[in-house]
Order: sequence, then C-alpha cells, then structure tokens
Amino acid sequence: VNAYELIRRKREGASLEEAELRFLVGGYVRGEVRDYQMAAFLMAAAIKGMTLRETVDLTRVMMESGRVLEFHGSGGPVIDKHSTGGVGDKISIPLVPVAVECGLRVPMISGRSLGATGGTLDKIEAIPGMTTGLTPERLVRQVNEVGGCFGAQTETIVPADRSLYALRDATATVESVPLIVSSILSKKFAEGIGGVVIDVKCGVGAFMRTLAEARELASALEGAGGAMDIPVKTIVTAMDQPLGLAIGNALEVEEAIRFLEGGGPSDVAELTLRLAAEMLLLAGLVPDIDTGETLAKDAVSSGRALERFGRIVSAQGGRLASESAAHGLPRAKLVRPFLAQSGGFVSRLDARIIGEAVRELGGGRFRTDDVIDPAAGIVLLKKRGDEVVRGEPILEVHASSEERALAAARNLEEAVRIAAGPIPRAPLFLEAA
Amino acid sequence: VNAYELIRRKREGASLEEAELRFLVGGYVRGEVRDYQMAAFLMAAAIKGMTLRETVDLTRVMMESGRVLEFHGSGGPVIDKHSTGGVGDKISIPLVPVAVECGLRVPMISGRSLGATGGTLDKIEAIPGMTTGLTPERLVRQVNEVGGCFGAQTETIVPADRSLYALRDATATVESVPLIVSSILSKKFAEGIGGVVIDVKCGVGAFMRTLAEARELASALEGAGGAMDIPVKTIVTAMDQPLGLAIGNALEVEEAIRFLEGGGPSDVAELTLRLAAEMLLLAGLVPDIDTGETLAKDAVSSGRALERFGRIVSAQGGRLASESAAHGLPRAKLVRPFLAQSGGFVSRLDARIIGEAVRELGGGRFRTDDVIDPAAGIVLLKKRGDEVVRGEPILEVHASSEERALAAARNLEEAVRIAAGPIPRAPLFLEAA
Repeated sequence: VNAYELIRRKREGASLEEAELRFLVGGYVRGEVRDYQMAAFLMAAAIKGMTLRETVDLTRVMMESGRVLEFHGSGGPVIDKHSTGGVGDKISIPLVPVAVECGLRVPMISGRSLGATGGTLDKIEAIPGMTTGLTPERLVRQVNEVGGCFGAQTETIVPADRSLYALRDATATVESVPLIVSSILSKKFAEGIGGVVIDVKCGVGAFMRTLAEARELASALEGAGGAMDIPVKTIVTAMDQPLGLAIGNALEVEEAIRFLEGGGPSDVAELTLRLAAEMLLLAGLVPDIDTGETLAKDAVSSGRALERFGRIVSAQGGRLASESAAHGLPRAKLVRPFLAQSGGFVSRLDARIIGEAVRELGGGRFRTDDVIDPAAGIVLLKKRGDEVVRGEPILEVHASSEERALAAARNLEEAVRIAAGPIPRAPLFLEAA
Repeated sequence: VNAYELIRRKREGASLEEAELRFLVGGYVRGEVRDYQMAAFLMAAAIKGMTLRETVDLTRVMMESGRVLEFHGSGGPVIDKHSTGGVGDKISIPLVPVAVECGLRVPMISGRSLGATGGTLDKIEAIPGMTTGLTPERLVRQVNEVGGCFGAQTETIVPADRSLYALRDATATVESVPLIVSSILSKKFAEGIGGVVIDVKCGVGAFMRTLAEARELASALEGAGGAMDIPVKTIVTAMDQPLGLAIGNALEVEEAIRFLEGGGPSDVAELTLRLAAEMLLLAGLVPDIDTGETLAKDAVSSGRALERFGRIVSAQGGRLASESAAHGLPRAKLVRPFLAQSGGFVSRLDARIIGEAVRELGGGRFRTDDVIDPAAGIVLLKKRGDEVVRGEPILEVHASSEERALAAARNLEEAVRIAAGPIPRAPLFLEAA
C-alpha cells in the first residue's frame, strides 16, 4: 500500500478498504502522508463521493485516531445532541440540563465559532470562571457525577479530525456529505455515546442552504449511524432567521437561562423540548415524542433543569450570579437600537448577515487566534412576520464602541427587509429525511 | 481573488480565467499559495478537466513563470522536437544534427530519466566531459553558432513546471491531458521556438497505453499550439517494444552515432528521418514529407550530420574518440547473454519491463539523487517477429556486477515471450490524431 496508489484509485472513483483508509488517515496524523497528498485525496473523495461502507470505515478510522471515552456505572443512557451550526443556536446549553433531569447522561463536547455561526464552547465560556478544557478522565467523572458537561474538543479525542478539518477548510473540500458525516460522527461516537440526535440546520444561515441538501446529509448521518450500530436520529430545522432573539455569546447564555427559568422565546423552547424528547425516545426512556416533551417541560417548570444547569456550571468552575439581571455575565458598554426604515411586516432577518455582523462586533473569529468579546452581539426585538411601525426598533446592537456599533448597523441594512403586507410565519421544523 | 474560491470553482467544474490561473500558479511559485491548496486544485482539474482556452492560458502562465528565450539573427527557423517518453528512445540525439544540417536551429532542452523511460539528458551526459547546464545566454549563443544544443531544464526556464510536476507526481495527478499539455508546451514554447514536432508514444512502455489516449493527447497538443499561434505537429508511434536495439545511456549514444555513420537499426533511422522531415515541413523549408526525408537522408549519407554532431558535442565540452570502437564512451564490466528458452518467433519484448530492468541495472533512477551508471543497459539481438532457436541469445545485459546481471536476467523473464509460429511485424507509425 502507498499513498499515491490510494489517491489514484479514489481519483478513478474506487472505494477504499478500511485498512487503506487507516493507512492514509493514520499516516497523515503521524506526518508520513503529506498534507498535499491528503488534500488531493480529499478533493478526489469530495468529487467522486464515498460509499456508505467507506464513510463508515472512515468514521471508525478517524474515531480510533485518538481516545474513545467509556461510560460504565449505573447512570442513565449516554446520549448526545449535535447541531450542524446556525446563528443564535444556543440550544445545547439548556438542553444538557433538561436531558439530564429526564434521566440521561450527556457528555456534550462542542466546537468554537466557525465563520458566521457561533460555537457552544465560546458561548458557555462567557460564564466567568468556566473551564472547558476537561481531560477525558475528568469529563467522564463529571458526567457520572452531575449527569452532563460542556467540554472542548482536545488533541486526545479524534486528533485526525482537527487536522483534516483545517485542511478541508483551506482546500474547498468542506462541502462533501461523506466527509461531513465522518467528521461529525467520529467526534460524537468518540464520546462513547449510545446514540445521538442531530439537528440539521437548513437555510441561508446554515451550511446546508436547501432542503434537498439538508435531507441528503440527514439521511447519510442516519445511514452511517445505523451501519455502525449507534442510532442517529436527525431532525431538519429552519435557519433563515436566527434562532431565538439573542445572538452573541453572553446574550445567548442569558437567553438559555431565561428558558430554564420558564420564559424565553417560543422557538428556543420548542426546539429544546423537541430535541430532549428525541433523545429520550432514542434512549428508549419514553414511548413517543409527546411523552418525552411532557417530561422535558416538567423538568423546566419544576425548576430542576435550572438547578441542574447550576450544578454542571459549578462543576466546571463557572460562577453565575442568580440575583443580578445578567446573572453576572459580561454586558456590552453600548446598546444601540436599529430602527425600522418603514412600517409594515418584517419579511427578512437574514441569519447569515446577522451572524457576520456579530462576528464583526467581536462575537466571533476571523482568525483562530482572535480573542472573542463575550458581551458583543445583537438582540432581536422583532422576528419574521412581526408588524413594525416606521422608526420602531427592530433590534439592538450590543457593542464595545460607537464605531463598531455603527459599522454593524451599516452591515445590518442588507439583513432586514420590511414588506407592506402580512408575511406568513415560516415553520421551525422542516420535513425530515 | 483568493485561492480557496478558485479551488472551489474548479471543483464545481468552472473554467478559470487567465488572471485567476496566474494568481494560483504565480502564488504557488512564490510560496503564497500552499502546496496542499495547489494539490487540491490539480486534483479538481484532473477530474473535472480544463477547456482548450483554459489549457492555453495555463500554458502561457506557466511559460511566463520564468525566462522565455529569444532567437534573432539570420539563422534558420527555430524548431524543436519532443517525445512523450519511451524505452530506447534516443532519437533526439541524431535528430538535432540532422535537422541542423537541413537548415534548422534546434534549441533542444531535455529532461532526465523518469520511471522506466530514459531521458535524453542522462544519455548525452554519458559522453565524457559533456556539460548540459547551459545558461539561457550560452544556450542561445551556441544554437546561433553551431545550430543546436542539448540543454538541461534549469530553474530559470518554466520554474512553475518543476514544482508542479513534482507535486503531480506525488498526488496521482500526472495523468491529465490538460496538465500534460501545459507542462510539455510551456517548456517547449519557453525555448522561443517557431514550432515543435511531438512524438506521442503509445504502448506498454509509454505513458499513453492505448491509441485512444495517445490520439486524445496528440489532438489536445495540436489544438493548444494552434490557439497560441505556435504550430504543433504530432505523430503517434508504437512503444510496445523498445525503440532500436540499445537501451541504456552510453549504449544509446553509440547507437545514435551508428545511425549518423549510416548504419544502426531500421526503426531508429525511419523515425529520425520522419521527424526531421516533419520539422522541415513545419518550418516551411520543404513542400512535403518525402522531400524532407530525402534532405535528411542526404545529411546523413554525406557525413555532414555526424560532423555536426561532433561540433555540437565539442561546443559543450564533450569528448568523443572516433578511432575507438565505443567512441570513448563508458563500457560495462560484464556483458551477459540472455538465452531463448525455446525456439520460435519473438512475440513479446515488453518495453516497460526492459526499461525497468535497465533502471535496476543502474541506468535509471529510483530517487532523484541516485547516481546513474552510464554504461549499464541492455542490447537487443532480436526484435519482435524475429526467429530464434532454443539457446540462442535474444539480448545482452551490460552490468557492473554478476549480481546485478543475474537480477536483471530474472526480471527479464517476464519481458520475453516466444511463440511457435510467425508473428506479424507491428507498425512503428500509428494513425495520428
């Protein structure tokens, strides 16, 4: 076996065997297969595709490039949730404590912000004192003790994905269903889980722009999970406007807490409850989604989920001040309203442009070593379909300076459209795979 | 413009503009576009193809990555010949002096041996004292003074090709018609020529195995030349058995001289005369191939081509001893016959296996820093279709040791087949594009 021959065969559309993929991926991680060879292989795979069997083998090979966690003991089923990434998607934060209160163990390991979309890790780190760099041992112990965690991807778990993803990001090979599937599932399956619910985002603010693309990815994820005997359940949800009202790291944590307190925007509540119910159904703890949602609602209304969130945060050193309005989270110096230029109905709140504006405000990164401003962000006061009068604030910009606030306001002009007549509300849940 | 976007577009099958190709190739040569990005681009181009216009633009961009020679003065038309590479293909060596004697200037710049196929540069360097590392200035001066040269590719001429070729060689992207065309034509056109004749080799010992592949390459070469207003004429010739009888560097120079002296194998004579005639026709110096071949034959039979060869070799410091049998060329320590295992007719002399055997004997390289043994090689005593009796020598192995000779003999067993009945002689000239 040599790398050249494997690249050549993939170029010709052949399917590689598990041992051959192991040679390539293992060799790449060890520095024996050069990055230009791996880049050529990834491009050939992105164009020629991979079979389900090949995708599964690649997932396994990537997963086994590092540590695979193991959960024993008498705790509940170990189930996780993943989102393919969207703007304002803070669902993991309230979902972990809700799912734990319903009887699951959730070893949530998340990534940082990427492009216009945020990352759970950056959000949760807006909580003062919060440590996310957990060793595998500490992560397993915490999940066994308090039911859940918010951990960071580390070099020990799926090291292959980190370098492969960086390479794909530089060589226009990110957009490939089998490569996306193996990247997502290798990381989730390395958590030692018994199943995962994946929220495939679809729309202008998501990686998958069309329903057809989202369905293809959803179906490939479920197929690969099935072939590996680890159940994967997908739902496809809309990502044309941001999820919830808050976009920005500390602002999203606040919104998550508001939900756990029994409030918050309706779409955040609906999606959190639905995902919790899907996780419970996957674990076999409930007979149907409705029962799962009832259990999840009860975990919130009883205050147990909020308390559980506090225990998980405390276990990682985080300090939330329940007495203060912002829970002790950082707040931006300036809050500037963005006003409706005309009266009518909000017909567009472009998630991608709003996500980019938050990144420009300091809430995201342009380079991997950029430092995040946790307080920066945008709070929507209206959503698609809402009526506005001319001069009424549509959203608030949370910024560290007038200059940044003004720049964001300029960028936001393209993001907002107001129509004269009523606009139908777009559904949150789209047809699944 | 950024590299990522250009890779993405090529991945989707788009055609890039000249400025975009210049950004990529120029950036790659300057180290701004990374090798893994270029590898991904090359793979996308190899799979998705390039239009004629794109191939021409890439050729121009590569050519302009370095010096482009210019020939002025009252000398003859500047025409070159290129071969896509075969086993025993020493034609450039007698062709240059023949073409010069017929009125052309020939700035032949050649490469070194590659895989199982030899390189003119390694062959000509078997002549003691021969210098091939000519500066552009010296090369132009020599061609103007003695009509021709045997030069080496240098860093100053088409530097882009050197690094791109090495990258393609490591990433299974060598086999791509537009990439082959741009590599060949950028180097030849950088010689400042008015036209080029290209011998597209076809068969087991060549890069193009089938006539369909050879025709496709031939047609693409002529099309790109036409679009750049530099005439390219191709012929397709057989490369199933070695060309001529000698394979190995010094042995091939000897065979070339034998032709210039009026002897040598018939296929070497036929191909040299035909290529010279094609060059003269391309330059407009003769009205048809027959007239060109008559001129070329006369250059040989008069002794003028041999004398011209001596002048070109002398101009580069080469020392040939006309009085000695081997012209002062290095000779191998051992010559061992390879005997026919049965009587009959030679039905196979596999060019690739024979080329590989010569490489194993030290006549070629496995790594770019391997030192060539100029004396090593094989001399065929029979060719395809020749009758042999059992125990009669079919070929001679020229080796530096018994061990190497024995190893070569073992490898050669697969190369030779003897059939009971007569075998038709295969044509040298195959149907052109």
